[in-house]
Amino acid sequence: MSKFWSPFVKDLVPYVPGEQPKLAKLVKLNTNENPYGPSPKAIAAMQAELNDSLRLYPDPNGERLKQAVADYYGVQPAQVFVGNGSDEVLAHAFHGLFQHDKPLLFPDISYSFYPVYCGLYGIAAETIALDEQFQIRVEDYARPNGGIVFPNPNAPTGCLLALEAIEQLLKANPDSVVLVDEAYIDFGGQSAIALVGQYPNLLVTQTLSKSRSLAGLRVGLAVGHPDLIEALERIKNSFNSYPLDRLAIAGAAAAFEDREYFEGTCQQVIDSREATVAGLQALGFEVLPSAANFVFARHPHKDAATLAAGLREQGVIVRHFKQARIAQFLRITIGAPEHNQALLDALASL
Amino acid sequence: MSKFWSPFVKDLVPYVPGEQPKLAKLVKLNTNENPYGPSPKAIAAMQAELNDSLRLYPDPNGERLKQAVADYYGVQPAQVFVGNGSDEVLAHAFHGLFQHDKPLLFPDISYSFYPVYCGLYGIAAETIALDEQFQIRVEDYARPNGGIVFPNPNAPTGCLLALEAIEQLLKANPDSVVLVDEAYIDFGGQSAIALVGQYPNLLVTQTLSKSRSLAGLRVGLAVGHPDLIEALERIKNSFNSYPLDRLAIAGAAAAFEDREYFEGTCQQVIDSREATVAGLQALGFEVLPSAANFVFARHPHKDAATLAAGLREQGVIVRHFKQARIAQFLRITIGAPEHNQALLDALASL
Repeated sequence: MSKFWSPFVKDLVPYVPGEQPKLAKLVKLNTNENPYGPSPKAIAAMQAELNDSLRLYPDPNGERLKQAVADYYGVQPAQVFVGNGSDEVLAHAFHGLFQHDKPLLFPDISYSFYPVYCGLYGIAAETIALDEQFQIRVEDYARPNGGIVFPNPNAPTGCLLALEAIEQLLKANPDSVVLVDEAYIDFGGQSAIALVGQYPNLLVTQTLSKSRSLAGLRVGLAVGHPDLIEALERIKNSFNSYPLDRLAIAGAAAAFEDREYFEGTCQQVIDSREATVAGLQALGFEVLPSAANFVFARHPHKDAATLAAGLREQGVIVRHFKQARIAQFLRITIGAPEHNQALLDALASL
Repeated sequence: MSKFWSPFVKDLVPYVPGEQPKLAKLVKLNTNENPYGPSPKAIAAMQAELNDSLRLYPDPNGERLKQAVADYYGVQPAQVFVGNGSDEVLAHAFHGLFQHDKPLLFPDISYSFYPVYCGLYGIAAETIALDEQFQIRVEDYARPNGGIVFPNPNAPTGCLLALEAIEQLLKANPDSVVLVDEAYIDFGGQSAIALVGQYPNLLVTQTLSKSRSLAGLRVGLAVGHPDLIEALERIKNSFNSYPLDRLAIAGAAAAFEDREYFEGTCQQVIDSREATVAGLQALGFEVLPSAANFVFARHPHKDAATLAAGLREQGVIVRHFKQARIAQFLRITIGAPEHNQALLDALASL
């Protein structure tokens, strides 16, 4: 603690991202990256921007990308916000939409960044327990709130909430923003963006780090009613009026334009997931139903921390959370087929 | 105003960046961009990252860039913070270091983003008038404060404060952070980074958008005591734990490594500035002494807004601020020699 710090800094406990090991040859199944590279059209679009024009500021509004997202989802550009990764977009949403008298609600098991944002912006929060099957039960959210947020599919469980249930939440909470954080939606769910035209209290966030293979580029977005987008824009323009760089705007827009590559690689990941789930089950693991590019699995007789350490010794890195309720689970990213097989082989030996 | 907004959003008045016109052929002297492109080594470094590795997250700490900055300035990487443009770095510094009971002090004429950050983070501010010659007078800052911030050279005046005066401020305010915002320092000033080893209350911010010709990439940095850097890191890691993308880290690091190109292009801009100042003076303009890549000039008989509009009709865009004290000035970016000449020719005709 330094006397120079703003008082709240002392109590900040930052989110710890999954390890980014520098050793080569590791089978890295710990941060939910895509095993396939980005669309070649995205690479080409960035290539075309890699020149002296980098001396010039980017478009402060990232309009080319907003248009590409709007075209992809059949919405208007005024319904789209873009930022440096969905973490930045989420931070702006918490700051701009969740500082209310009543508490923000989110599941007890969900993205561990949510309580961090609450600390950063002084937002009161209430966690709602997932049910015994680790599912969100919408009835449990029928209580006074200043907002509701959850990942869909949920992280780190991978479990999907159906659009009908989301619609039920939206109808029951007309005075609160319901933020659906769809980092993993493209691997088996249906986006709630289909509902933004009907529900002015719905905000949907997405990232290009997972299904669009651009984690290294840092691009995220939100789609919702223009009033909600305006709150995010006001904060963005009070914080950093040039958020997305020229290469990111170009690459991300092209990634949205290349629907065929996107759909093909998502399907490959889904197929690999199903094969990996079967392999894990054959080894005696219980695997939660996943609609994401990772699975959440536990073994009835083997300790998760011990398994994670054993995998690491064999050069396979997965994520283990020491948190209550989920300390016996491993979160395993779906990688390339040979990496998934390496994981199964290593687990078979432990 | 939407009922969904956090209450403070209503009162946010975001900073308005200089216009980014989409028309070609304009002589664009309004946003202080560099007329020369980035180092070819920076382009090559980004080229080397433009591949399938973009599917992987970047190093969350941007260590390659921190090391390059540390090497350049002869400091330790733990004294360096990097972010998405100096605006983001400044926002984190205001949030993490200036939320105190006593007001933050800054000049009445300075970067117009400072009051915006104060609004965003609920920081009380007191502005201190520049003297009659538009200079910072350090004696005027001898009053209770929770921090001091100013651009050096100042913006939009271009006037430089000597290191001795900065040292005087640091000594007089041992319990406050003094933030020196050096967006333009490389065009004629000496960086206060030379003082960070002696003064734990000094934080210096810089950008790669001006002297390093990478406005399109969005990279900024801060250098100071590790305790100050830790405050910024805590906020960064509570907000967006992966701030700089792979291409930005590589390109920015290489830009710092290419000292020769950097020094050569800075000198060209300085030479052009001196020629432009002489040309403006020959046309009867008063020009404030500039250590930046822009000049701040007024004509004793011609109205600034009228001049700006006249220039625009001739395809030359400069910046005009309607603010008290400076409403009769034009802020003119130093461009390529032919653009500076186009400006002088257009002014001669008005």
